[in-house]
Amino acid sequence: MLNFSFKRATEYVFGKGVETKAGEMLKKYGATKVLVHYGQGSVVRSGLLARVEDSINAVGIPYVSLGGVQPNPVDKLVYEGIELCRKESVDFVIAVGGGSVIDSAKAIAAGVLFGGDFWDFYSGKAEMTKALPIATVLTIPAAGSEGSPSTVINKITGDGPIEKRGSGGDCVVPTFSLLNPELSYTLPSYQTACGAVDIMAHVMERYFTNTPDVEITDRLCEAVLLTVIKHAPTAIAQPENYAARSNIYWAGTVAHDDSIGLGREGDWATHLMEHELSALYGVAHGAGLAVMFPAWMEYVCEQDLDRFVRFAKNVWNIDCEGDKKATAMKAILTMKDFFKSLDMPTSFAELGAKKEDIDKLVEILFKGSGGKPIGGFVKLAEEDARKVYEIAAR
Amino acid sequence: MLNFSFKRATEYVFGKGVETKAGEMLKKYGATKVLVHYGQGSVVRSGLLARVEDSINAVGIPYVSLGGVQPNPVDKLVYEGIELCRKESVDFVIAVGGGSVIDSAKAIAAGVLFGGDFWDFYSGKAEMTKALPIATVLTIPAAGSEGSPSTVINKITGDGPIEKRGSGGDCVVPTFSLLNPELSYTLPSYQTACGAVDIMAHVMERYFTNTPDVEITDRLCEAVLLTVIKHAPTAIAQPENYAARSNIYWAGTVAHDDSIGLGREGDWATHLMEHELSALYGVAHGAGLAVMFPAWMEYVCEQDLDRFVRFAKNVWNIDCEGDKKATAMKAILTMKDFFKSLDMPTSFAELGAKKEDIDKLVEILFKGSGGKPIGGFVKLAEEDARKVYEIAAR
Repeated sequence: MLNFSFKRATEYVFGKGVETKAGEMLKKYGATKVLVHYGQGSVVRSGLLARVEDSINAVGIPYVSLGGVQPNPVDKLVYEGIELCRKESVDFVIAVGGGSVIDSAKAIAAGVLFGGDFWDFYSGKAEMTKALPIATVLTIPAAGSEGSPSTVINKITGDGPIEKRGSGGDCVVPTFSLLNPELSYTLPSYQTACGAVDIMAHVMERYFTNTPDVEITDRLCEAVLLTVIKHAPTAIAQPENYAARSNIYWAGTVAHDDSIGLGREGDWATHLMEHELSALYGVAHGAGLAVMFPAWMEYVCEQDLDRFVRFAKNVWNIDCEGDKKATAMKAILTMKDFFKSLDMPTSFAELGAKKEDIDKLVEILFKGSGGKPIGGFVKLAEEDARKVYEIAAR
Repeated sequence: MLNFSFKRATEYVFGKGVETKAGEMLKKYGATKVLVHYGQGSVVRSGLLARVEDSINAVGIPYVSLGGVQPNPVDKLVYEGIELCRKESVDFVIAVGGGSVIDSAKAIAAGVLFGGDFWDFYSGKAEMTKALPIATVLTIPAAGSEGSPSTVINKITGDGPIEKRGSGGDCVVPTFSLLNPELSYTLPSYQTACGAVDIMAHVMERYFTNTPDVEITDRLCEAVLLTVIKHAPTAIAQPENYAARSNIYWAGTVAHDDSIGLGREGDWATHLMEHELSALYGVAHGAGLAVMFPAWMEYVCEQDLDRFVRFAKNVWNIDCEGDKKATAMKAILTMKDFFKSLDMPTSFAELGAKKEDIDKLVEILFKGSGGKPIGGFVKLAEEDARKVYEIAAR
C-alpha cells in the first residue's frame, strides 16, 4: 500500500425529498448570494428546479439562475456563468443536475476567483487552488462529481476539433451534496445504463493497479462493482425501484470520492481515450466507456493476469481453474455481455464511431497529454492507444 | 436503505513515518498550545513520543504532556487532563496511542469546554456539542476512534462496580489522524488479535441489521471483514509484515468511521454486553468481543437466517446449499474457530469471567440502558441478555 493523505469534507444528505433542504443547507454554510446552475429543461419540467428555488426563497437568500448546460458541457456557458457570478457578487454555486452540470459549476466556481482564462485550468497552464463553495442536487448517478475534486469541460473552437479536458482540485470538492435517489426514477434506460458503466469505470480505473498489497481497497472496489452489477438491471427494468436506485446512487458517490482508491496507483487511460470519442462524436461518456474498457482490458491484461483472474472470480463469479489468460478473456467477455444486457454499445460501429478516425483520435489524445504516454497500469504510447482503438473498432 | 446524513472531516495522513508530521499538521490547523496525551510508557520506550514532541518543537508550538492512560481508560485521568488544559490554556489535544488514549483525549477535549461534570456526557445527562479540536497518532488498529465520534470511559467509584459508558458527538471526530502502520510492528500477538476482533465487531454490529436493500453497505462491510480475515493471521505470524499491518490499519479506520454503516440500522448489543465484562474483569475489549459475538449470534440468528446464510457465504466462503439454520451455525462456528486460531478466548472460562456473575453483569448492563432493551437487530430484554451471557458461559 502506498502512503496517502485523504480528506473529503463534503456533507452528504441522502434520501427521499432531500432536495428541499437546499435552502437551509446553503444558509448553514453561509451563502449570501447563490448561482443556481442547471441543464436543459428536464429539471424545469419535473418541478425539481422549482423545489430547489422555493427552498432557497424560504430562507431568504437571493439567487440568480443559469440553465442550459448540455451533456459534455462546453466552455461558452462557463464564461457566461463566471461573468454572471461576478456581476451579481455570487458567493455560492449550487448545481442541480448530473455530472455535466456539476462539472460546469466547478469550472465557474474556480473561474470566478481566477485572474486569467478559466481554460488554463483545463489546458494544464494553471492549478485550481481556490473556488467559490459548491453544492449539488444530483439527478444522475454516474460521474461521481458530487463528491470528487474532478471536472471535465469541452472547448469548442471555430474550426478545430473539440477538446475535452479534465481538471480539478480540493477547492471544488462540493461543500454539500443532496442525494435523492427518486430523482433518477425518470431517467431513460439509456442514461441509467450509461451511469452504471461510468460508475463501474471509475472503480476499474482504480482496481487495475500495479500497487501490491492493497486488499482493503481491492475489496472495497469489488463491493461497488458487485452492487452495480446487481442493481443496474433492476433499475432499468423497474425505474421506480427504490432499492436499486438508492444503492446505485450511493455506489456512484463511493466509486469516485477516492475512498476506494486510497494508497494505490490508478490507470485512467480508458477515460482519456473515451474523452476523445465523446469530443469527436458527442457520444455519452458511459456509452464510450462501455466500448473502450473491454478493448483496453484485452490489450493490457497480460500485464498482470493474476489481477484479471481475481477480477473474474470476485466480480464475475467465474470459475478460475483453467488457464489464466483464458480466464481473463472470459472475464472481459462476461463484462461485455453485461454491458450489452444493459443495451450499451460495445464496438465502434454500435457507437457510431469510425475506424478511419483513429489517427485523428490518437493525435488529439496525445496533444492533450503533451505527447506523454497515458495510463498507470500500463503506460500506453501513441502506438498502443491506436491498437486499443483498433480493438474497439473490430 | 434509510435516509442519512454523513460528513467526516478528519484528514488522514497514512504511511511510513507520518508521526513526524504532527507539528506541521497542528500548525496547519491553528493550534497554539497543545496537550500531548499518551499511555503507560510504551510510546516513551519506543521513542514515538519523542518523535511527536520533536516535530511539535520544530514548529515552535508550546505543549504540555500527560501520560498514564490505561487500557479501559478511567475518569480520574480525564479530570486531571481537563484541569491541566484549563490551567495551561490548551487549544488542541493530540492523542498518541490506541483507542483508550484517544477516547480519554476526547473526554478531556469535550470536558474542557463544559461547565458541568464531564461524566454527564457518559451517564446520558448532557450531550457533547463542543470540544477542543483533537488529533491522533494511532498505535493500535482496533477501536476506530481515530475517525469516529465515539468515546468510552470507565468510572471508578469507591465501593460500587466500575461503570463503562460510551458517549460521543461530531465535535470529537478527530481533525486529523496520523496513521503509520509500522507503529503496530511491536504489538504483542494478543493485542494484534484483540484489535482484529474489535475491527470485525465494529463491522458486524452494522452488518446485522433489519434494514432491507442495503447491498452497497453490505458489500462494503464484507470487504472489511474479508480483509481482516486475510491479514490478521499474517500480522501475528510476521509482526513486521507491512502488507498485513497496513491493510489492517486502514480497515480499522474504515470499519468505524461509519462509511460502511450508512443508511442502515445497527445493533450494538454485543458491545454493550462486552463493556460490562471489561468493567468487571478488566479484560481487553477485543477478547471480550471474541467471547460475546458468537454467543450473541447463536441467540439471535433466527431473526434473519437469510442474513446469516449471506454472512456464511460471502464472508466465510461456506457452501450454503443445506438447511439455513445449520448454515448459520456453521458460520458462527467458523468465526469462533477463526478467533481461536488467533489465540482469542471464546468462552467465559478462557476469559476468566464467572458464570455466577451473570446476574451482576445483567444488572449493571440495564442500569446503563436505563432499563430499556438493548440492540437494534434484536431487542434484548434483561432475560435475553442473561441467556446470551449463559451461552458465552457454557
